[in-house]
Amino acid sequence: MRTDLSPEGATVGFIGLGVMGGSMAGHLLRAGYRLCVYNRTKAKADKLLEQGAEWCDSPAEVARRADAVITMLGFPRDVEEVYFGPGGLLENARPGTFLIDMTTSSPDLAVRIHEEAKRRRLRALDAPVSGGDVGAREAKLSIMVGGDFEDYEAALPILRVMGTNVVYQGAAGAGQHTKMCNQIAIASNMMGVCEALAYARKAGLDPETVLKSIAGGAAGSWSLSNLAPRIIRGDFSPGFYVKHFVKDMDIALQEAERMGLDAHGLKLARTLYGRLMEQGEENSGTQALYKQYE
Amino acid sequence: MRTDLSPEGATVGFIGLGVMGGSMAGHLLRAGYRLCVYNRTKAKADKLLEQGAEWCDSPAEVARRADAVITMLGFPRDVEEVYFGPGGLLENARPGTFLIDMTTSSPDLAVRIHEEAKRRRLRALDAPVSGGDVGAREAKLSIMVGGDFEDYEAALPILRVMGTNVVYQGAAGAGQHTKMCNQIAIASNMMGVCEALAYARKAGLDPETVLKSIAGGAAGSWSLSNLAPRIIRGDFSPGFYVKHFVKDMDIALQEAERMGLDAHGLKLARTLYGRLMEQGEENSGTQALYKQYE
Repeated sequence: MRTDLSPEGATVGFIGLGVMGGSMAGHLLRAGYRLCVYNRTKAKADKLLEQGAEWCDSPAEVARRADAVITMLGFPRDVEEVYFGPGGLLENARPGTFLIDMTTSSPDLAVRIHEEAKRRRLRALDAPVSGGDVGAREAKLSIMVGGDFEDYEAALPILRVMGTNVVYQGAAGAGQHTKMCNQIAIASNMMGVCEALAYARKAGLDPETVLKSIAGGAAGSWSLSNLAPRIIRGDFSPGFYVKHFVKDMDIALQEAERMGLDAHGLKLARTLYGRLMEQGEENSGTQALYKQYE
Repeated sequence: MRTDLSPEGATVGFIGLGVMGGSMAGHLLRAGYRLCVYNRTKAKADKLLEQGAEWCDSPAEVARRADAVITMLGFPRDVEEVYFGPGGLLENARPGTFLIDMTTSSPDLAVRIHEEAKRRRLRALDAPVSGGDVGAREAKLSIMVGGDFEDYEAALPILRVMGTNVVYQGAAGAGQHTKMCNQIAIASNMMGVCEALAYARKAGLDPETVLKSIAGGAAGSWSLSNLAPRIIRGDFSPGFYVKHFVKDMDIALQEAERMGLDAHGLKLARTLYGRLMEQGEENSGTQALYKQYE
């Protein structure tokens, strides 16, 4: 099997050119990779095509042409379709091809992809990311990788183009499980951040001055430093969409239940975000949770 | 009224020489202040007395001798007694004396102390801290101050000996309210940290490797970086006691209710910490919340 995934030796395929995927694919192109792309909405590929990427009419075509295919999709059902569907990646990739799913998706699905890939002599990795649109734009993502260790090692040249913190977490599914840990930690903390700000306002304090006292200490967090100032300004635009966060929490809750973990805080956060969805906030940023406390 | 609170000009009284208070009083002594101390258990003052502090037999004696009295006590009922009780500070302090309560206590009580102090021409500040035993030892506390602005300004020479982040938050009670914001943010985040770690373990991941992926990103927090490693090592010794955190959450919940804020996450955290208390963990560190998820 070929394992030279250097820019000189390899063609990378990229499926899913949204806010995250578009930036990530651009970095691969600038790193010198030959890049084949597919996206449901072709217009989102325009900029990459101008820069030298090659268009493919289907996931199947990407699979046939690339040495490594990266997928960055919206929901697990999209991943399922692109990998297992008719004209999907598993059926059309040449033996030895790397299939790297960077979507935040279900650990269970990652294991199924890995098994089917093995059967077909393909090399599947689950490699979800954190760092958001800014991390993708600046190539500073944290990438959490599950799969066979030798495949992780072989794929490092590609992954390191997009991220600064690439960590092998274990067998297939371990990347997705790690991302779930990430989302679980965020979910409860978002309640804390929003409740602290709502309390500050109702107590008649100046929330910005409160942040000066508390953001640098034991109450400090990425969300308090980065999202609380947006909340204070009334900026609820998406860094990370409510609808995607709810999807992630649902995966985490399903897995938690399967493993007998009673994740009280996660459940409560999911309930509050569910109400937010019902109020039409699905396309707001996750900091819109604050509206539940106003 | 005298307002020279420089080490050359002022005698400071200190009541409450526990883990926090002992360190804080030591810094005042080393900064050159004449220091009068009182503590329920006299033995805790021994080290300070060796270093030159002077012993007082009662809070009343401290009040009569000091230009500024600092209190660092356990619970609001202790504050109430030391300020309002027979032989208390309010009754015995000379006009112009500063009364600075650095206990985490109720905003309501801070307002009552301030009113009574005003009536007696005393100058009360509420100035709770964050930063824990380490912050106290290293004189790097965050100090959140409520009261009259001119009193805050006058007291700065003293406060800056103990903290690096001294911020005026507003009228009497504002310091305590700010500390409540701090504790509210921590409360929910502790659930997120513990649930993320419990999930990691049950999913068969290596929790330390998971931290490498998630601690530096959007899930990052002081608790994840500082308490999660202790949890992983099975170290539940107190940096901050469960029993004190529960006291703080009770004050915050009471205030939240009064202002019509439904602090869902805080309520849930209080419930889980309540179970922990029932299981005899009141003298463990707050990271012992993890045991609720094992």
